[in-house]
Amino acid sequence: MAEYQLYCFGESGNAYKAALTLELSGCDWDPIFVDYFNGEARSEAFHQINEMGEVPVMVHGDTTLSQSGVIQDYLIEQTGKFGGTSPKERREIWRWVLFDNHKLSSQAGVTRFLMNFIPEDKRPTEAIAFLQARLQSAYKTLNNHLTGREWMVGDALSVADISCCGYLYYPEEFGFNRADWPEIDAWLDRIAATPGWKHPYDLMKPAYPPQKS
Amino acid sequence: MAEYQLYCFGESGNAYKAALTLELSGCDWDPIFVDYFNGEARSEAFHQINEMGEVPVMVHGDTTLSQSGVIQDYLIEQTGKFGGTSPKERREIWRWVLFDNHKLSSQAGVTRFLMNFIPEDKRPTEAIAFLQARLQSAYKTLNNHLTGREWMVGDALSVADISCCGYLYYPEEFGFNRADWPEIDAWLDRIAATPGWKHPYDLMKPAYPPQKS
Repeated sequence: MAEYQLYCFGESGNAYKAALTLELSGCDWDPIFVDYFNGEARSEAFHQINEMGEVPVMVHGDTTLSQSGVIQDYLIEQTGKFGGTSPKERREIWRWVLFDNHKLSSQAGVTRFLMNFIPEDKRPTEAIAFLQARLQSAYKTLNNHLTGREWMVGDALSVADISCCGYLYYPEEFGFNRADWPEIDAWLDRIAATPGWKHPYDLMKPAYPPQKS
Repeated sequence: MAEYQLYCFGESGNAYKAALTLELSGCDWDPIFVDYFNGEARSEAFHQINEMGEVPVMVHGDTTLSQSGVIQDYLIEQTGKFGGTSPKERREIWRWVLFDNHKLSSQAGVTRFLMNFIPEDKRPTEAIAFLQARLQSAYKTLNNHLTGREWMVGDALSVADISCCGYLYYPEEFGFNRADWPEIDAWLDRIAATPGWKHPYDLMKPAYPPQKS
């Protein structure tokens, strides 16, 4: 059994943040597939693992953690990687992880879900338009921040980058067009050029479309 | 001048999290009013203070921080209060702060904004209904977690409580009814019974309705 286990599925950008941190840190880890679109995350059995009913969940010995930001913080402590070089940088990393959770990944995840993973006649078009407009503001903040920088914080890749990019490599449409945001576009290329980088669907098994169970 | 300055306005539950942490920690702090509804947070001058264009922003000597979770973490370091009693509790606190940012305050804040602070004929009813439904799931997770507990983490008030309660004391309607969630209701009473607790509008000056500038 690998040292770390990660409950995840391919479509989850939040799980991708944990999986990519594990992978780039060189950790020995295995994915545990969660059959999300057949309702596994909402099951009583899964709620015993995570009362929030969400992936990712990481298990390391006696420690079970959820929330990608907590998992990333724990991995920084374990491996010493991707956590910045000073308390000031660490705070700045946290600031962007929280921005991502509050304004970027949270809204990108639900918008992509609504536009791709529910039947076309059930898609709430006004809510989708509203979320897409809110996301433009988040992309703008990110693009502005990256102007004149290679990485979100300091001079190296950190979990701030690995958090903010969580939903931005997926092929499914959700209103994010890389060509509209040249600084984000170049930064995504830089992250993807990091030795060991992998696309979400190469790290975690997709759960869509759901197989008959 | 007080030791800490907090850029804030009364309606911001995110600012309230920082203000209440400062107040309950016994810090010497002053609010700096941000005239949000006249567009101050979107101004170029404010973007020089916080490129994310958001409150809260806290200034302490040479240190300027934004994101309520980062401010709370910094105050734990400064005062030793509300941060739990072990690394395990600290991680659990962070897990709920991230849950709050991802699923609770983020969605409660925007829903309340849309239902109260824009003209009635411009309110996107479908988006509001969508957000309200999503929030029910967050309230359920919170209510379930509080069953059989006094506080979110361990045996004492922590920034996990001060984060998750951020939008839940406001009088403006956004689809949250305390009576529907008895565990949340009792917990909000417990927090409010903490010596020194204050309501958001008693800690920070409201910005709505906007005064002609």
